[in-house]
Amino acid sequence: MTLNSSIPEPLDATLNPPGELARLLTRFSQFGGLATGGVTRLCASAADGEARDAFAALLADAGAEVLTDGVGNQFGIFRLTETPQAPLVMMGSHLDSQPRGGRFDGVLGVLAAFEAGRRLMHAKHAGAVFNADFCAVNWTNEEGARFRPSLLGSGSFVGKIRMEDALASRDDDGVSLAEALDAIGYRGNDAPPPAPACYVELHVEQGGLLEADKVPIGIVTRNWGAAKIDVRFTGEQAHTGPAKMHTRRDALFAASQVICEVRALADRWPERIHTSVGRLVVQPNSPNVVPAQTDLSIELRAVDDAILQEAEALAMQAVEAAARRANVGYEIGNRTSRPIRVLPAAVGDLVRMCARQARVESREIDTVSGHDALSLLDLCPTGLMFVPSVGGIAHNENEDTHSDDLDTGMTVLMAVAQRLCTSAGDPVAAVGA
Amino acid sequence: MTLNSSIPEPLDATLNPPGELARLLTRFSQFGGLATGGVTRLCASAADGEARDAFAALLADAGAEVLTDGVGNQFGIFRLTETPQAPLVMMGSHLDSQPRGGRFDGVLGVLAAFEAGRRLMHAKHAGAVFNADFCAVNWTNEEGARFRPSLLGSGSFVGKIRMEDALASRDDDGVSLAEALDAIGYRGNDAPPPAPACYVELHVEQGGLLEADKVPIGIVTRNWGAAKIDVRFTGEQAHTGPAKMHTRRDALFAASQVICEVRALADRWPERIHTSVGRLVVQPNSPNVVPAQTDLSIELRAVDDAILQEAEALAMQAVEAAARRANVGYEIGNRTSRPIRVLPAAVGDLVRMCARQARVESREIDTVSGHDALSLLDLCPTGLMFVPSVGGIAHNENEDTHSDDLDTGMTVLMAVAQRLCTSAGDPVAAVGA
Repeated sequence: MTLNSSIPEPLDATLNPPGELARLLTRFSQFGGLATGGVTRLCASAADGEARDAFAALLADAGAEVLTDGVGNQFGIFRLTETPQAPLVMMGSHLDSQPRGGRFDGVLGVLAAFEAGRRLMHAKHAGAVFNADFCAVNWTNEEGARFRPSLLGSGSFVGKIRMEDALASRDDDGVSLAEALDAIGYRGNDAPPPAPACYVELHVEQGGLLEADKVPIGIVTRNWGAAKIDVRFTGEQAHTGPAKMHTRRDALFAASQVICEVRALADRWPERIHTSVGRLVVQPNSPNVVPAQTDLSIELRAVDDAILQEAEALAMQAVEAAARRANVGYEIGNRTSRPIRVLPAAVGDLVRMCARQARVESREIDTVSGHDALSLLDLCPTGLMFVPSVGGIAHNENEDTHSDDLDTGMTVLMAVAQRLCTSAGDPVAAVGA
Repeated sequence: MTLNSSIPEPLDATLNPPGELARLLTRFSQFGGLATGGVTRLCASAADGEARDAFAALLADAGAEVLTDGVGNQFGIFRLTETPQAPLVMMGSHLDSQPRGGRFDGVLGVLAAFEAGRRLMHAKHAGAVFNADFCAVNWTNEEGARFRPSLLGSGSFVGKIRMEDALASRDDDGVSLAEALDAIGYRGNDAPPPAPACYVELHVEQGGLLEADKVPIGIVTRNWGAAKIDVRFTGEQAHTGPAKMHTRRDALFAASQVICEVRALADRWPERIHTSVGRLVVQPNSPNVVPAQTDLSIELRAVDDAILQEAEALAMQAVEAAARRANVGYEIGNRTSRPIRVLPAAVGDLVRMCARQARVESREIDTVSGHDALSLLDLCPTGLMFVPSVGGIAHNENEDTHSDDLDTGMTVLMAVAQRLCTSAGDPVAAVGA
């Protein structure tokens, strides 16, 4: 394939107006918006439906073809080439949020991808010639707040999660993802696009390293491994008054022991493992009734596979010991494990080069949290870049990123998109494009 | 006052048909009924409204005057005398249940009181002369499952709880008792009846002592003391991935430590204290978010006031230590303490005598659980009698009491009611009536 590099570089500055991304983000923060500036936009909620509608409208206005697949992933295809089977460059993230979450987490990457597509389309109409089409994507249920597992949409796209399993996932009210998507009109019939030649995601850091170092661009080179274990303890309802202590089968006592043990694992390997139980549902949850059932979600994230494996084994031992002490049964539900992975150097090199050309500093960084980019890692060369989070605050309505950092992220992502689309999506070729 | 003992004794057997109470209980078990035979009839729910309607209709049909006070307590006044200021004998319990609770707990005492009133009214029409009126009562929110504190309606009646505080109590969805009562039409305008001369409550044991001893009637002589402490821990939302462990302010970790410590208190004084945390609400309750808030309800019940006080102090220390370790704040919400109390011997003697006359065995027994009778204890001579629970099962949909035990309880309660109403509600006089 002959690559064509006829685009003026950088793209016409009028295509990259400062503050444009911030304005779009402010608009999207209304969907599920809170008085504090944060958002509660759970996957496939009404607020998520509004955000999806707005995203689809933006895409259509900008001349993209909009597809929605069977698990609700939204793809905006910008046809930059005249070739039906042209390689595809894909960028995106997710529109869903945590309860009382931040207004940048996820939506930044989706809107930045849209902006990149819009500008590339504009460049095409202005005469630029590309060797790849471009796709801006919104992945369903990245957060795992309402439906489990997290990374559900991107995991389904790459074949790690079967579509029927994804659709059968139920929230704590018993509503399935299929039902929730139907309710907002986002269980689509479209075939998803083919595997991209390259995937790049822009995200807020959710930690404080970039801010501390005063570096505006983080190039993710490694992700921490993660093990997630859903546990159900099953005891028996009894009166908290007369029931003798030795006869009780208290599912909350079992869960509480596990939560304390999981926290203790973090002290065993300081700075090398993060542990948590963020979710606990108690049945029947009445002050005078011995709890008959608890559901909890254990998370372990480590920078070392051996630590992760040992911690996972210890967590399972803690579950068994707690069940024995509380005289309850247990079963393991969803259980996923993600090993430590290194992201491909080629995409990182491309980002680094684009940052340098834009005269902004960048640094290598780990990601402790999961991102849709990690799902794509098995499918194609994948990059993940961070912009700073004020105070490192994340999954909190006070999450913030400065507007000039948004502009810097957009500038670098735009350059990456332009080079990739010029280079048929090949990151190695794109460095020289 | 001249007492009149002209009633035939015992009352005409046709008024006490075997199985009548069981039939009424089966009918009421439909309100909030579960396939298993249990009930979910939370206070001021639609199902509770249906049960209240049925109770009011029964009372009206039997010639009682039906009153509903400002917190929803329902009183059925059977005018057995022609004296406007006649003493009042009161019996009753509660129609609300725990989630997936039993079909006898509470409703037994309400329907037995109704049956007693109906039969006394019948006796009056047949020529019997009484020296007290009779009241069958349904107390609002005995369980404390939906609204806190428990014993809310009876506590309000005796002046321990202010009506405005009772009505302002909110369930976990933020609905106030006032709103919930309005929704089912049971926030009444009636003034409650005056303080009764005597109050007697029939209840299922909720323990296994009567069954083990094969004794059909338990005469409660003492209640265990109880301390109930609602605690809120306030931390801060953060991402369970990148947030450094030492920066986290995990409200669920704090709650879990307390739950383990509260359980350990029970091992410190075996058989002399029962401890539990039955309720825990976690915010925002997402697997990937460090919990920002937990609300938990601690219960301590002891047979010894000194133990209860020491346990309460230790529980408070555990709350403080847990907050410190988890770096979260805490506040104490509702906090109630009920000392060990001895029930008046006179009412116990009356029940014992009535059981003996009915040729059934009785035994003295403690109550570990709270009952509305304990609210009335400060107001008037109060009695509490138990019938056996199969397997001691309580606050569980498998709760059961044999039909012949129901008949025995009804027979004894009926004799107690008859003697009290003949004796102007004076239990000492009633023994000799």
